[in-house]
Amino acid sequence: MRLLTAVDQLFLLLESRKQPMHVGGLFVFELPDNADSDFVYQLVKQMQESDVPPSFPFNQVLEHLAFWKKDKDFDVEHHLHHVALPSPGRVRELLMYVSREHGRLLDRAMPLWECHVIEGIQPEIEGGPERFAWYFKIHHSLVDGIAAMRLVQKSLSQSPTEPVTLPVWSLMARHRNQVNAILPAERSIRGIIKEQISTIKPVFTELLDNVKNYGDEGYVGTFDAPMSILNKRISASRRIAAQSYDIQRFNDIAERLKISRNDVVLAVCAGAIRRYLISMDALPSKPLIAFVPMSLRTDNSISGNQLSFVLANLGTHLDNPLRRIELIHRSMNNGKRRFRRMNQAQVINYSIVSYAWQGINLATGLFPRKQAFNLIISNVPGSEKPLYWNGARLQSLYPASIVFNGQAMNITLASYLDKIEFGITACSKALPRVQDMLMLIEEELQLLETTSKELAFKGITVEDKNDNKGNNKTKKLAP
Amino acid sequence: MRLLTAVDQLFLLLESRKQPMHVGGLFVFELPDNADSDFVYQLVKQMQESDVPPSFPFNQVLEHLAFWKKDKDFDVEHHLHHVALPSPGRVRELLMYVSREHGRLLDRAMPLWECHVIEGIQPEIEGGPERFAWYFKIHHSLVDGIAAMRLVQKSLSQSPTEPVTLPVWSLMARHRNQVNAILPAERSIRGIIKEQISTIKPVFTELLDNVKNYGDEGYVGTFDAPMSILNKRISASRRIAAQSYDIQRFNDIAERLKISRNDVVLAVCAGAIRRYLISMDALPSKPLIAFVPMSLRTDNSISGNQLSFVLANLGTHLDNPLRRIELIHRSMNNGKRRFRRMNQAQVINYSIVSYAWQGINLATGLFPRKQAFNLIISNVPGSEKPLYWNGARLQSLYPASIVFNGQAMNITLASYLDKIEFGITACSKALPRVQDMLMLIEEELQLLETTSKELAFKGITVEDKNDNKGNNKTKKLAP
Repeated sequence: MRLLTAVDQLFLLLESRKQPMHVGGLFVFELPDNADSDFVYQLVKQMQESDVPPSFPFNQVLEHLAFWKKDKDFDVEHHLHHVALPSPGRVRELLMYVSREHGRLLDRAMPLWECHVIEGIQPEIEGGPERFAWYFKIHHSLVDGIAAMRLVQKSLSQSPTEPVTLPVWSLMARHRNQVNAILPAERSIRGIIKEQISTIKPVFTELLDNVKNYGDEGYVGTFDAPMSILNKRISASRRIAAQSYDIQRFNDIAERLKISRNDVVLAVCAGAIRRYLISMDALPSKPLIAFVPMSLRTDNSISGNQLSFVLANLGTHLDNPLRRIELIHRSMNNGKRRFRRMNQAQVINYSIVSYAWQGINLATGLFPRKQAFNLIISNVPGSEKPLYWNGARLQSLYPASIVFNGQAMNITLASYLDKIEFGITACSKALPRVQDMLMLIEEELQLLETTSKELAFKGITVEDKNDNKGNNKTKKLAP
Repeated sequence: MRLLTAVDQLFLLLESRKQPMHVGGLFVFELPDNADSDFVYQLVKQMQESDVPPSFPFNQVLEHLAFWKKDKDFDVEHHLHHVALPSPGRVRELLMYVSREHGRLLDRAMPLWECHVIEGIQPEIEGGPERFAWYFKIHHSLVDGIAAMRLVQKSLSQSPTEPVTLPVWSLMARHRNQVNAILPAERSIRGIIKEQISTIKPVFTELLDNVKNYGDEGYVGTFDAPMSILNKRISASRRIAAQSYDIQRFNDIAERLKISRNDVVLAVCAGAIRRYLISMDALPSKPLIAFVPMSLRTDNSISGNQLSFVLANLGTHLDNPLRRIELIHRSMNNGKRRFRRMNQAQVINYSIVSYAWQGINLATGLFPRKQAFNLIISNVPGSEKPLYWNGARLQSLYPASIVFNGQAMNITLASYLDKIEFGITACSKALPRVQDMLMLIEEELQLLETTSKELAFKGITVEDKNDNKGNNKTKKLAP
């Protein structure tokens, strides 16, 4: 038995039919050359018949919304699903299936995770290998999205010839140390409470800082986000849109403008969202604010979730893509400096304050017009090395995340090999045709490629000359 | 808003992770000749895009476990699932899929039903038409199994050329009177309470009757069932086994022995269960008792659920199949006479008394060694006419029912055209290899065919000469 932490409880309390609180990942594999026709069947069978028991946290079940305990009735049959896509088996049908499953609540009577092996996906290009997918879904109270993606990747092999011997839910049996590093440590109640209390002062200092710097566009506070259709109430219907883009295209733009790749990613998202909102005649006059989780790790240790976040001004009110990118770059730099001062527990509490609107909404049924931010744009760890599942090459991986009342879209990215993989999770009722975002991302990427080439030709870059007081002396690019 | 009835609440209270309380039906269709490759896709699309709202009870959602109310957030996406079978797409894979879905709890935050369109099922015989299936799942508190099967059949067409225009959940829009006849009437709270009270006396008279006739093998009471492996605690894992048998084979045996077809069905089940238990060295020395729901309708009206039930002695302790069939016949006749005296409300209360063991178990965590019966063997209405779904012929339909703690197997049958369709629902942990039952049913059927032929040749039948006092003067057949 293990007491639920405040964060576990937050995720469980926020959960409702319309707001499931699980994260997910979609992993698409290519069948190996000369694979037997029952290749996927054998993979599933291997997992079904594995006699290694599930390890922490995959064996944990809720007890009265107060404790986690080991599930004595664990049966893999309830967690492992094997289906095929209905014809024609395109990526469209795959995303339909995943969207629907992602909208279904996990059953709280069992350990809060599921995985689906989905076969019968058309080859990417005619004559290419047929594909299958693995959709993984786990409650945010068990692990966060980053840990979920890491765990699945950990369960795969880095070699096409080395077989995978353990299903992801039994990983701990042979990789205890590595898995422990991914998962949050088990801690005493006293430790949790002490840490929570110690965060109160720094969190309120930061909130105060928000007020002090009110008026500086590059300094984004907690109450600056305008209302938009991204911030409507959500329904229980989800739509997942996913696509891969060459990482080199982002790197080239970043290099030409002398900014980070992350800034370019945000600028592409910002431009695409701007186009999406304009297409629905719903662009707010104030810029949208993105909640951008950031890694705080400075060393190369694999230890856990040293996470912080930044509120980034997306400059969606600006028509000029370079002025937009400049503003994003500036607000990211300000934000990074600010949150670097906080430790993990403080950041979590800060994020609880930010989520507090959700809590008020939940408790009172009121729907606050003020939002701390308009959407979450986050990065989860991918892999630079190709991964394999009994010889089947992982072709791409797409994160699927959570949307909330007031947060109807989430963009999560992962890099894998030479691609950036975009997974967009949205409420399909609040945001119709969210799959259009994929095309708009491509359009914005092309625009930034062209524009940055022209600038690089003229020798102009987005130079950052912040001094220590947070004043920005950025060379203005746009006319 | 509509108050939950006592029976609704019973089904909801008895429900747990290990004991989902929904009934289901599996309907297998053949693709029409020259069907487009997207035939099933179009069927699903038609249902998804239907703009006729769901009708009662498909639009009802639970409110605080006390009321049913109309679901304002109804979204067909949460109820209609479209998948394909993983290869090789045999009936085995179909039943695996249905077994797993049948073991999953329905989400109480939504109207308590789901349907699954499953494509990619191999032809029955090589070169035959490819098949698809429709698995329908609805909570027993909304409709009983009989109503569920009737509703789905009502939604189909009796002609291959007449299209189906409404999904089953919107049937009421055009067939209000016919659907009302299938569903339980909405009644006032006062009416429900009055009826419940009026049943107390007759129910206790019957229970007393059980005690008075104690000792007569043909007179089955509420406490005669022996313990058996059919009456173990159940897990959350289900196995559905299903097969069709020619109805003529049962009719021939019934005619030769001058008994009802229902008696033959019970005898075949009894013999198969005896074989199954012997194979696991688990045959009790006392005969197993079956709970057999019976229709009380004497007219041809279509009005509702005039249901009663009989406790039948299955004679599983007898090696001789004819002595077994004779005992079954006799105890069925006694039971029918007895329960004919009760009205529907009385029967329901009687069945609550019988289910009371479940209630005690639930409330106390004790597991009573005494069972009112060993398993339910029931009949749900099939169809004598072929049914079609936009030209796709319904090939077979299999009921999927509920198992309880202490009731780990359920056999439900339906007749369709010239077949009797057996659907066996079991807990796969309590009862391993339950699919063996299908083969054992075939073996028993063959044995009864041979034996009845021999007897008919000698001119001997199972003659029923019950007088009004319940004494039996049956001609003894077996040596």
